[in-house]
This record gives sequence, structure tokens and C-alpha cells, in this order.
Amino acid sequence: MKDIHAAAKRLRNWGKWGDEDQIGTLNYTRPEDIVAAAGLVRKGKVFSLALDFDDRGPQSGKSNYAAMGRFNPIHLMLRTGTDAYSGVLDHRGIRGADDVIIMPLQGGTQWDGLAHIFYGDQMYNGYDCRLVTSSGAGKNGIEKTKEKMVGRGVLLDVARTHGEKWLPDGYAITNKDLEATEERVGVTVRQGDFLLVRTGQMQAKMTQKSWDGYPGGDAPGLAFETLDWLHRRRVAAVATDTWGVEVRPNATTDANQPWHWVSIPNMGLSVGEIFYLDELAKDCARDQRYEFMFVGPALPVTGAVGAPTNPLAIK
Amino acid sequence: MKDIHAAAKRLRNWGKWGDEDQIGTLNYTRPEDIVAAAGLVRKGKVFSLALDFDDRGPQSGKSNYAAMGRFNPIHLMLRTGTDAYSGVLDHRGIRGADDVIIMPLQGGTQWDGLAHIFYGDQMYNGYDCRLVTSSGAGKNGIEKTKEKMVGRGVLLDVARTHGEKWLPDGYAITNKDLEATEERVGVTVRQGDFLLVRTGQMQAKMTQKSWDGYPGGDAPGLAFETLDWLHRRRVAAVATDTWGVEVRPNATTDANQPWHWVSIPNMGLSVGEIFYLDELAKDCARDQRYEFMFVGPALPVTGAVGAPTNPLAIK
Amino acid sequence: MKDIHAAAKRLRNWGKWGDEDQIGTLNYTRPEDIVAAAGLVRKGKVFSLALDFDDRGPQSGKSNYAAMGRFNPIHLMLRTGTDAYSGVLDHRGIRGADDVIIMPLQGGTQWDGLAHIFYGDQMYNGYDCRLVTSSGAGKNGIEKTKEKMVGRGVLLDVARTHGEKWLPDGYAITNKDLEATEERVGVTVRQGDFLLVRTGQMQAKMTQKSWDGYPGGDAPGLAFETLDWLHRRRVAAVATDTWGVEVRPNATTDANQPWHWVSIPNMGLSVGEIFYLDELAKDCARDQRYEFMFVGPALPVTGAVGAPTNPLAIK
Amino acid sequence: MKDIHAAAKRLRNWGKWGDEDQIGTLNYTRPEDIVAAAGLVRKGKVFSLALDFDDRGPQSGKSNYAAMGRFNPIHLMLRTGTDAYSGVLDHRGIRGADDVIIMPLQGGTQWDGLAHIFYGDQMYNGYDCRLVTSSGAGKNGIEKTKEKMVGRGVLLDVARTHGEKWLPDGYAITNKDLEATEERVGVTVRQGDFLLVRTGQMQAKMTQKSWDGYPGGDAPGLAFETLDWLHRRRVAAVATDTWGVEVRPNATTDANQPWHWVSIPNMGLSVGEIFYLDELAKDCARDQRYEFMFVGPALPVTGAVGAPTNPLAIK
Repeated sequence: MKDIHAAAKRLRNWGKWGDEDQIGTLNYTRPEDIVAAAGLVRKGKVFSLALDFDDRGPQSGKSNYAAMGRFNPIHLMLRTGTDAYSGVLDHRGIRGADDVIIMPLQGGTQWDGLAHIFYGDQMYNGYDCRLVTSSGAGKNGIEKTKEKMVGRGVLLDVARTHGEKWLPDGYAITNKDLEATEERVGVTVRQGDFLLVRTGQMQAKMTQKSWDGYPGGDAPGLAFETLDWLHRRRVAAVATDTWGVEVRPNATTDANQPWHWVSIPNMGLSVGEIFYLDELAKDCARDQRYEFMFVGPALPVTGAVGAPTNPLAIK
Repeated sequence: MKDIHAAAKRLRNWGKWGDEDQIGTLNYTRPEDIVAAAGLVRKGKVFSLALDFDDRGPQSGKSNYAAMGRFNPIHLMLRTGTDAYSGVLDHRGIRGADDVIIMPLQGGTQWDGLAHIFYGDQMYNGYDCRLVTSSGAGKNGIEKTKEKMVGRGVLLDVARTHGEKWLPDGYAITNKDLEATEERVGVTVRQGDFLLVRTGQMQAKMTQKSWDGYPGGDAPGLAFETLDWLHRRRVAAVATDTWGVEVRPNATTDANQPWHWVSIPNMGLSVGEIFYLDELAKDCARDQRYEFMFVGPALPVTGAVGAPTNPLAIK
Repeated sequence: MKDIHAAAKRLRNWGKWGDEDQIGTLNYTRPEDIVAAAGLVRKGKVFSLALDFDDRGPQSGKSNYAAMGRFNPIHLMLRTGTDAYSGVLDHRGIRGADDVIIMPLQGGTQWDGLAHIFYGDQMYNGYDCRLVTSSGAGKNGIEKTKEKMVGRGVLLDVARTHGEKWLPDGYAITNKDLEATEERVGVTVRQGDFLLVRTGQMQAKMTQKSWDGYPGGDAPGLAFETLDWLHRRRVAAVATDTWGVEVRPNATTDANQPWHWVSIPNMGLSVGEIFYLDELAKDCARDQRYEFMFVGPALPVTGAVGAPTNPLAIK
Repeated sequence: MKDIHAAAKRLRNWGKWGDEDQIGTLNYTRPEDIVAAAGLVRKGKVFSLALDFDDRGPQSGKSNYAAMGRFNPIHLMLRTGTDAYSGVLDHRGIRGADDVIIMPLQGGTQWDGLAHIFYGDQMYNGYDCRLVTSSGAGKNGIEKTKEKMVGRGVLLDVARTHGEKWLPDGYAITNKDLEATEERVGVTVRQGDFLLVRTGQMQAKMTQKSWDGYPGGDAPGLAFETLDWLHRRRVAAVATDTWGVEVRPNATTDANQPWHWVSIPNMGLSVGEIFYLDELAKDCARDQRYEFMFVGPALPVTGAVGAPTNPLAIK
């Protein structure tokens, strides 16, 4: 617990971008970074890093973690092609289908917003956590980021660095792992980057055709020490192919998800989860280019503490 | 009605990209178009073309159109900052908020998918409309487009061409209007483009601080003849700042939304609606550059006939 | 405010039925009351006191009251007759329809549960209000009442006593009004009764074919002094044909809904709202019997702070 | 299949109560039956036959049956006690909680409506199945029954007749079983009755603390031949403690749920499922009275093809 509080203090970015700031490390990405990122588009190839949103999503997996109330998307129709076929829409003068979705905002590929995790009674930039009521987040809502998720993307395929299809559950990715991967592929993570770290866990689950153990379960992921590394490199955001980015079981038993205690509320770091990185990783291994243009804005739901996204890597 | 059927036959793209195709005109955009589009990023400025998704959205507007069952997003919390403050989350070892959304997929800024509108008993590429059941779209689901909404964006601000803040309701934008606007700003719409047409209607509604008349109501919009123009120009997709792209009241009383009868099921044209174009339009007027990189993938909801998006124009 | 606190103290039933009690005044109804109530069934005629739950419900009405997030029920289908007709269900070996509802638990005819209103940081029987989290009510959930809403029903048609079709908005029904109505129809409200008070406001709204002003708006309703009367008479529950039972605007501006501050959290009184009383009232006027068997259990949603019901008056 | 069609023809009640009828066998219960039923209330004891509606409901059980899209209720809050405690509601002048539910209408204790199952292209009373669209049931909606679910209830505890806690899965309850049970307890099922048949399966699942196999799985239940018996006895409705009333696996492989093919669309029989009968059964065994007043109206959701209920047995 002492370590968590020390890191929180050491890495805290409150006030750094003004008292009114609500987007944290997304401020790191400058216009020139976006221009440079666009320059990485050479093949005109687009990779979606999203899982499709449906009832086969990861929330169906069994979990030993305390129930969070998340579920797979429920997709329902307002009008259908069968209605059309049956002739019951013809009085409208047009035959069409329409639909509705019910979904937890963090049930699939998604960004954690800066109102998602609290540190004591506060959230990022020192805002009172009571600003996040049953009516949503009065500050740090995900909609504040709607024009900000664009920049250079860098993939660090740590599993591949280890020569594995996937890292084992419980494996803590260290700063050394990150740097060894940088070196292996000849890329250096720098200010304003969107860092994607591949553990391979998602591929493991897909190979076994079951999400059991994925939501909230044991997983490879970032070690606590990576917080300092990410802070030093000034990344805009970090995302992985796991449910919760950080290694599980967590290194400490004092707190649950200690990395989250520091990253989101103290650093103001946007955290991406359940990113599908396998196709991108294959392509990067093929052409040995691990940098690309990243465009991955969240769906701007007002007052949301997280939101689904269809993030694209464009090479 | 004869005109509709003639246009449907004339402009039909079924089979053009193979019998298995499910994305239609999005096929027009080639890798080299994407590379070229990235080259348009010069300032590193990002414009979100999405309205925030919340209970102040356009579905609150009164409408004379037959009820469609659409409503503004309902955002609900699974855990809150007030829970955190109250101490009731501490047994979890982490204080966090989480949320859920219930929303029509076409309630806000969105793409119409190719399973959205039927022509007789068929949809795009000749698929049977009965493939769109209460379980969703078995073909032409929006998720098929997840890596496809990237290319050159072109804004045609027709309202500005007319020297108006906004075009009047019922104004039919002609091919001549589109070409006059091209000429005015020195841009030519070409194959694979994402064409954004600004009518100004959304700004009119925002100025009057009411969405009344917006959903399904009278509006400026594309004339029926633009179908041929869009076909000839081979655009990948077209979007406007209105509820339904085409002019309303429609030119014919034989059918409702005749432009939709042809564009979506026959041409396989992706249609974007409720796009927020005002900030982008101001910037284009300022720097006189009406072309930019467009990245606007839909949220890939499996089997959806439409989906929300946070489309970005990157200059 | 002083009056509210004095009444809260004077009428408080905390501990009266034990420290573990979670149903409050519903304890008043004894088995012999239920047997006696059944004895009132003479004609075999059943009156539903529920509005149908649909998109024409009272939440569509305009309101000047602070938005509560309530909306009319959203009814969606999982399978339809049009699916059946289209043949797409036949692989199941059975043709059937199925459906889903999304609804605020207090959007239509409903019971307020004892976790619905707090007094300071407490709810009925002194339970900490923090037991009602985003996960629902840990105490006083509506499901505790599932076998309790049976007894003698008494209708006091105060509008009719005044010779009016409906009382005007803002009219405060006094104890004298209640007693005059008792006398007029020869019935005396007594321990364990389910008291239904008709103001006629619902009929007024139905006559004008608009719910405007109904949800949260001005309304006839019980005066603050009726709290003492209901306490003295030991009613099990009280319900009216209005949105919020008590008169609005409220007599005081110190608090909003002062009658609710006392009735639910202090007395532990179950309060029914949006009850449809018109058909029952007509029948009672006809046969001059204002007492009947009342069976109106809430839908037992675990941890709910209110719940819809289809309450029946059986004569 | 021939048997099904023969039974459909033999037992069909179309037109019996007029061409406009939408409630079928509920017509059997006459006012005098209701009066007589009230006379069965002797102890003033009330039994709720509903499971609480929550995330521990039967839809969590694994099933080999084709997915139906049903899920356990999702209960979400609009305001909470933690909001109240945090002070964020005080500007309203009242501290209160409020909530929302998302639920399949047939996910828990519920009535199948007469628009739930089709026979060919028709439903009860010969209505076209295309009247049940994505907008709900235009005919035979459950709301039509809102004043009709009152009468004599009779419990036939067939498990007890067999001297078992519960009947084995796949056990087909015959007419002889029903009659042996009548004889054992000295009650005769007659016109207008609400017949409750206890198999014990729900108790089996509760004892094993898992719903696995319950939704759509193998189960004891009514044999096909009981259709004739129920027709002859003119019951108003029948309900059991299983997911689907009839025995599973079904006797035939020609059709799925053959008993449903006949009962709902042809006979117009209201069918209750997932009824909790154990407490009632114990009490009946104790006092040897297997008849009681039954009051079990569905929640009147307009156009619903089924609806949840909190049915009461009152003794």
C-alpha cells in the first residue's frame, strides 16, 4: 500500500495541464505528432483492433472476480426484414430494419475514461469522486476525448519477444521486457504515442474457444513498475489485448488492481482494454514496421466512465 | 414509382464486387487512396463529426413522421463515485465506476448499414431480406465495414455556396449545386471519397435550441438525381448533417424516402446521418482546404443494420 | 422544515415490528383481515387498477419537475410472428414470439418501496441509506412485500364528494375531506386497509388526451396533515390516481415532497402511484359499495426501490 | 405430426367465444367461480408463487436448447442511497432512489400469452401471425388478460403422489397421474380453474443450487394426452414449476414442444411457467386443502406475448 501511495504521489499529473483539464496524458500528443503519424501510412492497409460487439463477447467467460454487472451486448430489432417480407411495413412507404443495443460501456474493446477509477475520494486532476453519480460523470467524461485519440501507434509484441504465442497468466511484463521489445523491432516509444502491448492472451482464449478466465481472471500484463516507464516516456495512452492491462494476480494483496490506482486517477492515463492485436501483430512481423497511424476515438457518450471503440491501425 | 424502379435498375451494383460482397461502394476506396488521404494531414488538427450521445440528442425532437421507436441514449451506472465515497466499494479493493448504455443504433451520429433498407424482398447484392430477422442481419451487417471507413473526405458546404447559414427545409440539392460547390472551393469528388454534404440544418436546430422537426421532418437534402451523380463519381459513402440525407418532403408521394430505396439496397451505398459538420466547415472556410483524411468506422455490432460512430476529419 | 421533522419523530414506526422489519405498515394487515376481505367478494367482478405498460404511458408528459430519468416502457421483440411467417424459425421445430422490456420500475402503475425515500442518511427502520447502492437496495427491497399486498381495499372518491369530475391541481385533500367521504359512502377506514384515494386527475389527463403536467407537475393530493390521520387509522398502504399522492405544489418550499419525507422512511408506509381508479369508482357509485378485496402485489424485483404492479379490486 | 394436427383440430377453440375474442380459455371462469374462490380463503395466508426477479434467476442455467435470447433481469439504478449520502441529491429537496429494469418478459415466473406460439401462419382464434411484428402483438396481447387471472386454484402435487421429492427429468405426467392426484387429495379440477401442477423440478434445481439444465432442458412435465384432459375439464389456465410445462424430451421428434403447438394457438390456453410451488405444496400437505383462491394477473404490457407475474395463492 505504501508503494501505491508513493507511486501515486510521484507520478501524479494533477494540474499539469491546468485545473480544468479533463483528458490527462492525451495532452501529450501534439499536432506535429499527428502529422508525423499520418506519414506512417504507406500501404493503405487498415486493421481494426476491435472485437465485434455481440453475444459471443468476452463477458460470457467464467470469472472468479467479484461480479461487476457487465454482460455481452444485447442486440434487439425495432424493425426487420421479416417484417418487410410479411408486408407489415408497406404502409410506411419504405421497407427498412432498425435496431437497438444494450451494452455495458466496458464490456468489449474499450477505453477506460478518467472517471473510471478513483484514488480515495478523488479522480484525475483532483476532482471530487462525488461528481460521478447515478447520472454519470460530471467531470472527466469520456466525451472530452472525442478528438484526441489520434497519433502514432506503436505495437510492442512482448509475447513474440519471448518467442511465445502468448505469455502465461500471471506473467508481469517489466520495463526491461518493453525495452527489449523496442530494441528487437527497432522502435522507440516516445511522447504522445499510443502504445499497444500484446500479451497474446486473447489469442490463447480464442484458440481454446472459450473466454473462461478472461474477464477479471489471471492474465499476463504490465508490472507495477511500468507506471514509471510510461510516465517517463510520456505516452498518450496504453492498451493491451487483456481484460485489465495489468498483470493478475496482482503483485500485492493490499489492493486490487494497484496499477489502476495510479495510472488512471493519478497520471490521467487513458487505458485501452480488450484490444484485438493479432492481425496487426502478424502484419508487423511480416513487414517489420511496428509503428503506424493510430485512430481510435471512443464513442463519445456524455458522462461515460468508459466507452467502446473501433480503433484502427493504419499502415 | 417508375422512376424509382428505373434508377434502381440503372444504378444497381449487385454482383459488381462478387456474389459474396457485403460492403458495396466501400470497395471503391483503394489502398492508394488511403495513402493519399493520409497525405492530406498537414496541421495535425482533428475534428469529431459526432454529436455526443446523451439525452439531449435529436430523438427528443417532435416529429410528424411515423414513430420509429428510436429514442435518445439511456446511460445508466453500474458503480459510481458516490458509491466509492460512501465506502461501499472498498471490499473490492478498488474504487471505480462503470456504466451501461441503451441506445438505438441509429439514434445519433451513425452509418446506415446495407441491411437497413430493402428493395422489395431483397437487400444489397440481392440477398433475401428474410436474412434480417429479430436476431439481426445474417448478411450485410455493419460489422463487415469495420476496416473500411478510411479515405479521403471531401466537404461540400452547399449552404455556404448559396450564401446561407442553412438551406431551407424542403430544398433539394441538385447535381448542379454539388458541382457549383466543387468549383467554388476547387475540389473534385472522385472514386473512393467519403463525401460530406453540409446543409446547415443541424446548425439551424442548434441555434433554435430545439430538435423539433429534425427526426423525420422536413429538411434540405439530396435530390433524387444525385443518385446518378454519386454513382458516376464512385463515392465510397455519403453523409450529411440531417436526419435522413435526402430532401424532405420527398419529391414523390409514391414512396417514402425514394433516394433510400435506390442508394442503400441497389447501389450498396453507405449513408451517414446526423453528422456534425459545423466546426469542420468553419475551418475549411478559413484555410480553403475542403479535403482531409476521413476516418469514421462504425462501432462493429454484429448483425447491426446501422451503428453509431465517432467519425474524424483529420487535417 | 420544523414541521417535517416534528412529524417524522411523532409518526416514526422504526422498531415497532422489530429491528429486522422491512415492510413497515404492511404488518398492520392480519390474517383475519384477509379472510374478511375475501368475504367482500360478492359479484365476482374484477377491476384492474393498472394502466397498460406501453409507450403511451404518463412519462411522455411534459414536466417542469427536475428530470428523473424515467421514461415510458420500451418493448422489444426477440422473435416475432413475421419471423414465423418468413419461415426463419422453422429450424427450431416451433413457431413462437418472445419479448423484452426496458422500463423504469416507477414509470407506470407502481408501489414505492421502503428504500425509495431517505430521511437524512437513513431509511425505514433506521437502516443506513448507503445500503441502497448502484447494486440495488440491500434492505427494504420491494421483494420483501411479495406476499403482503392483500386485504380490504377502500375507495375514497374525494372528487365525487366535492361533486366534481376531478379536483383542481393544487387542491390539498384534508382529513376532513377523507372523513366526509367516509361518511358519504358509509365506510370507515381501519387497521390494515389498502386505502385508495381518487382525485380524478388521471381522468382529467385522459380526457384532455395528454399527460402534460402529470409526471411531477401540479396535482391535487393528500395534505401534509393526512400523515397523522393515516397513522391513526393504521392503514397498510395508500394509493392514488396521481403521480405522487401528495398535493403539488407542496405546502412548504423548505422541502420537496414533504409528505414523502415522513410517510415512506419514517412511517414505513407503502405508497401506490398512478393507480387507475375510474372504472372502479363508477362501479362503487353504482352499487354503493366502496369496500372490496384488494390484491395488488408488486412485481418482486430483488433490491428494487419500487415496482410495477397490476393491482386488482375484486368485488 | 399427424397426431399434433389431429389434436389441434379436435381441441381448437377458435370462434367459441366470438371472432373478436383474445383471451381464450380464461373465458371459462365465471363471476360465480370468483365468488366461490373467495370463499376458500379461510386462514388469511398468502403464498407468492413467483421467484424473485434478479440475476440469480433461471436464465443463468446452462442449456442445450437453441439459444432464445432470454437472460436474467438486469436491475439498474437511476438514483441511489449513496448519491443521497454523498449530498448530490440535496438540490432536489428530497433524497430518493429510483430504478430501471431490463428483462425478457418470459425470463422468470410468467404467463405465456396467446400471441406466444403460432400454428402455421395463425395464432389463437385464427388471427394472422403477421399481427405479431417487431412492434409487438396487434392481437392476443397479454394486456387483454389483465382482469382475468382470478379464480379457484387447485394444486396437483404429482411428485408427492408418486412419493417423490421430485419427478425425474423426462417423466411424462399422464391423465391418470392427474386423476390419481385428484383422488388422493380429494379435489376435482373443474371449469374455470387455475390448475397448478407440481413436478418438483424447481426444488431439485434449488437443492443442487444450480439452474443448469432448467431453461429448455430435460424435465418432467405434462404428456401430450393431457391436452384432451385439460380441454374436457375446461380449465382456465395451467401452470407448473418447470421452464416449459410439457415433458422434455418431447415424445415426438417431428416437432419441438408439440404440447405448445396445440395448447396456446389452438385451445387458447394460458400457460404459466417457472411457478414456485414448494411452500404452497407444503402447506397443502399440512392442512390437506389443495384448493384456494388464485390471483395471478400478468403485468399488462401492451402487445406483449408473455409477461411476468407475482401470482398469489390465498388460503
